[in-house]
Amino acid sequence: MENKEKEIDQVEGRNSVIELLESGKDINKIYIQAGEKHGSIYKIIAMAKERKVLLSEIEKSKMKQMAQTENYQGVIAIVPPFSYVEVEEILQEAKKRKEDPFLLLLDGIEDVHNLGSIIRTAETAGVHGIILPKRRAAAVNSTVAKVSAGAVEHMKIARVNNLNETIAYLKKQGLWICGTDSNTQTNYDAQDYTGPIALVIGSEGFGISRLVKENCDFLVKIPMKGKITSLNASVSAGIVMYEIVRQRNQTKEERK
Amino acid sequence: MENKEKEIDQVEGRNSVIELLESGKDINKIYIQAGEKHGSIYKIIAMAKERKVLLSEIEKSKMKQMAQTENYQGVIAIVPPFSYVEVEEILQEAKKRKEDPFLLLLDGIEDVHNLGSIIRTAETAGVHGIILPKRRAAAVNSTVAKVSAGAVEHMKIARVNNLNETIAYLKKQGLWICGTDSNTQTNYDAQDYTGPIALVIGSEGFGISRLVKENCDFLVKIPMKGKITSLNASVSAGIVMYEIVRQRNQTKEERK
Repeated sequence: MENKEKEIDQVEGRNSVIELLESGKDINKIYIQAGEKHGSIYKIIAMAKERKVLLSEIEKSKMKQMAQTENYQGVIAIVPPFSYVEVEEILQEAKKRKEDPFLLLLDGIEDVHNLGSIIRTAETAGVHGIILPKRRAAAVNSTVAKVSAGAVEHMKIARVNNLNETIAYLKKQGLWICGTDSNTQTNYDAQDYTGPIALVIGSEGFGISRLVKENCDFLVKIPMKGKITSLNASVSAGIVMYEIVRQRNQTKEERK
Repeated sequence: MENKEKEIDQVEGRNSVIELLESGKDINKIYIQAGEKHGSIYKIIAMAKERKVLLSEIEKSKMKQMAQTENYQGVIAIVPPFSYVEVEEILQEAKKRKEDPFLLLLDGIEDVHNLGSIIRTAETAGVHGIILPKRRAAAVNSTVAKVSAGAVEHMKIARVNNLNETIAYLKKQGLWICGTDSNTQTNYDAQDYTGPIALVIGSEGFGISRLVKENCDFLVKIPMKGKITSLNASVSAGIVMYEIVRQRNQTKEERK
């Protein structure tokens, strides 16, 4: 896994590949399973030829090996990997917008649906950028892009080797690091978020890792009234992100 | 579809059925595919015998026909369907807790993952009950239960024929009906939610239907700063539900 530098991304299934072709996005190559005779396969071949996308017919067994899902339906498109940015570019983005930095740090989100949903909410909440660790976490791929409703294309996302080193760097840049933790005392809405802030969201199963938690300037929790003791990661991220938005909007109005 | 009264629910796959057996919940019957010889199948047979659950061996072709997913792995457990309540019981629940009613009306949520996630958030937010339409909407099944992290067992859920008739009934009972709509002017955090309230969440693709929207007492929107113009249904439901919680907690504190 360590030397898997040359990453590619792929889009699988007839409808998904047709959507991709219609979007006009870059496609490296499209693989079609030998002998596939389906109306939509002919449509894909025609569209690919029109867009001058490389087509390749391969054997069923090879196709199966290449597929990452079970619903590839005899078609796989190879697309360029997602372009990550550097952390500095995210801080630049905040400067450009003349806003206090509002970053999101995801400490081990492994589910691509959660990652996609978080990116979507972050984009609507006006987050300047998202930081992911390189290891033990979902990366941005075509599934994440789809779940994000296209938000990945408008969001600066950085991948770092060590989240704690990044936190140290962000602190030096004047950011406050806020973690979410169900075992803390402070309710999320009792915290002031109007300064430069990086919000840390923990993994689905284990929350924020010990060391990252220790490096947070403060921890907040979402109060829970029922018998269930945790929320879905993308929902809790949404609740805290929008509390930050709410407070920042209020402050602006009060300043008027 | 109209006469599909005798609904059943099923749990599929080895791990899911083992979890189900361990949970001690009611199981009507477990079907095992003939000739399946896997360690975990023997475990399931042993556990089922211990719990005196009916076991039945069936042919591969029949099993395939019965399966609702692709990952049934030769095991399907039949479980009693979810027990819905009447709308009145939800209002009773609020009375019992001595709280202003806080209901959720889901106008056409079709995705079982969204439904499960919304039920989970509703349970932690202290919602008294959820109302679903019978038609064109996801029903509570074992997938919803799983995604809800078990919250379905602690949540009163009613299914109604006509959401608009239910809204008229709830209005008579003194509830305010609040809809979410991205085209309205009022931000969700500018609205007062401290009285008896029913929050309406629209479907993933189309939002709240026209007639339901007209029957709402007020509409609120979640402000969006980016290029994406909608949020995931379970995330937006979470954001508004927790604004209601926030306001109600504040009021309580101010009353002290």
